[in-house]
Amino acid sequence: MTVNAEKAAVLAPDDVTFVSGELRPYLADLLAREQAAWKERAGASWADLPEALAAYLGGGKGLRPRFCYWGHALTGEGASPQLLQAGAALELLHTFALIHDDLMDNSDTRRGRPALHRAIAARHRRDGRAGDPDQYGLAMALLAGDLAFSVASRLAAALPAPAVTAWSRMVDELVLGQFLDLAGSARQDRSREVACATTLLKSGQYTVTSPLRIGAALGGVPELPAELVRYGDLAGEAFQLRDDLLGVFGDPRRTGKPVGDDLMSGKPTQVLALAADMLPPYGQALLALAGTSALTPSDAAELTSELTRCGARDRVEQKIRRNVDLACALVDRAVLPSRAGDALRKLALAAADRQW
Amino acid sequence: MTVNAEKAAVLAPDDVTFVSGELRPYLADLLAREQAAWKERAGASWADLPEALAAYLGGGKGLRPRFCYWGHALTGEGASPQLLQAGAALELLHTFALIHDDLMDNSDTRRGRPALHRAIAARHRRDGRAGDPDQYGLAMALLAGDLAFSVASRLAAALPAPAVTAWSRMVDELVLGQFLDLAGSARQDRSREVACATTLLKSGQYTVTSPLRIGAALGGVPELPAELVRYGDLAGEAFQLRDDLLGVFGDPRRTGKPVGDDLMSGKPTQVLALAADMLPPYGQALLALAGTSALTPSDAAELTSELTRCGARDRVEQKIRRNVDLACALVDRAVLPSRAGDALRKLALAAADRQW
Repeated sequence: MTVNAEKAAVLAPDDVTFVSGELRPYLADLLAREQAAWKERAGASWADLPEALAAYLGGGKGLRPRFCYWGHALTGEGASPQLLQAGAALELLHTFALIHDDLMDNSDTRRGRPALHRAIAARHRRDGRAGDPDQYGLAMALLAGDLAFSVASRLAAALPAPAVTAWSRMVDELVLGQFLDLAGSARQDRSREVACATTLLKSGQYTVTSPLRIGAALGGVPELPAELVRYGDLAGEAFQLRDDLLGVFGDPRRTGKPVGDDLMSGKPTQVLALAADMLPPYGQALLALAGTSALTPSDAAELTSELTRCGARDRVEQKIRRNVDLACALVDRAVLPSRAGDALRKLALAAADRQW
Repeated sequence: MTVNAEKAAVLAPDDVTFVSGELRPYLADLLAREQAAWKERAGASWADLPEALAAYLGGGKGLRPRFCYWGHALTGEGASPQLLQAGAALELLHTFALIHDDLMDNSDTRRGRPALHRAIAARHRRDGRAGDPDQYGLAMALLAGDLAFSVASRLAAALPAPAVTAWSRMVDELVLGQFLDLAGSARQDRSREVACATTLLKSGQYTVTSPLRIGAALGGVPELPAELVRYGDLAGEAFQLRDDLLGVFGDPRRTGKPVGDDLMSGKPTQVLALAADMLPPYGQALLALAGTSALTPSDAAELTSELTRCGARDRVEQKIRRNVDLACALVDRAVLPSRAGDALRKLALAAADRQW
């Protein structure tokens, strides 16, 4: 299946219109053609996987394509059909990352709905298929992630060389960040270094800086201005710090994740790294249980309170605030078209203040 | 990390020398640089994942790079540094496929050694890390597969456009073939159509035709001659049919897989599709259990005997023989440099006659 980009030139006046008015229909069309190709090759009843992917792709805030849009707009270049390809590649890569993350974390839910592997297992059970439903759910979700990654890679490979370079770097960082997250949890690492590296790689660069860089590369600017690299890393870190706080203190009805999830898994977050310095002995004893099966739900609730009491939570809130302020100031310093500057300030705030 | 291909121009006089003398050192160097990059970004003790990948990459027959080598040699073009990149991409893609396959099939072993997820789980257990060892093994192996896929995609994206097109097509086919394998097992599909489509996609095109096509594309021939497409599909099908027979009748000491593995999982293979037509009632009753937990090891042993007795095994052997004969005849008909013709005949025979 090849992508017909010529038909679709981006005309949207802002990132929100770009995502809802152009990127979503483009992605729907792309996946419909993927489904048709599968049906043609394997028969009408064998297109479950692209169907599952299409159903999964609807949600989300489209943050990465939105940053990509502004990275491109900054260059002053007009409508680019390749912006749609890049945006679609970013959304599919994120879909891959979420599906595989949920397998790696053995999560039950995503965005308040069953995680993909759980949904597929439930369907296998309902239809009375052969074999173990949970193993089937795992296998099919894993493959759905692989499919998303492969379509994303195909789209990315067709971009101009500087954008391909930025893309490859982003994917490398995503994998390394996820590795630090998993290995840091297993080693119960509470160092600031690992927590900060994980934040930066897993989310800072992946969510903001790299999409900006890809967008700029599409507009013929292979080197993102230093202010914007710094903006991206700061806003991205704020995004991830908010994620970390929501993972501990968030309302499960809004986050769609079970309460205390990140404490049960003992992820190497900055809030836990701070807590390792700030907690009194009782809290330290609880912290030592994070990530092990010895941590009970009531321990997790206690630890949550201790994290607030010792001031670690406040320190992270302050860092989020400081990051957003600095990021906005950097936007002021970079000489940008005003609507781009306004949008980047708004996006940094939105990433840092979201409730889910 | 960028790949320095200029240093390495392919000089090997044949596929075996290419893989052992040039590709293996190139891959070792590539992964050593990947490890160094990880250490630089995350600290000296955080490079387990590229290390695991490097350890995993040693085994295997290197079939896909060997076909790629000949696809390139056929074009009459001389040494190409990009042949090394393509060969490395093919080996890494295959590594990704094996690691993820073992997770999807919940396999204990690969090539007679513990599957990667089992090895990582054992190490987690031995080191007394936090969290569930099996879940950690799953998560890290999944991510190791993702890393292999991402490095493979990065190498492939740097190839000339016709080779990238051939690459994308191959990856699509690999995912679709794996889907048919999983979904066919769950649906207990015993149709010839699905069995043949799975064989063709999962192995025929992936193992032979696509690597030939990529090699030819590197040599400036974007359209593989029809005889060679047919050769590739036939030899690749023979390869997969041998795999299917080994999965049922193979000696576990040589295959490195438990006996009766494919019957326990009920894969939609051609030998089972034939059996659905040829088995007498008792065998049919056993076949209906394949892929369900109701099939005991002694049932599997009985079913194995029945598959021989009813003639299904012989029919598959005949088809392998016929495919190899036809494939060799097509090589004769295509006008090829004689050493390429000899090599392709030898490879078709080797793929069909291997014991493991």
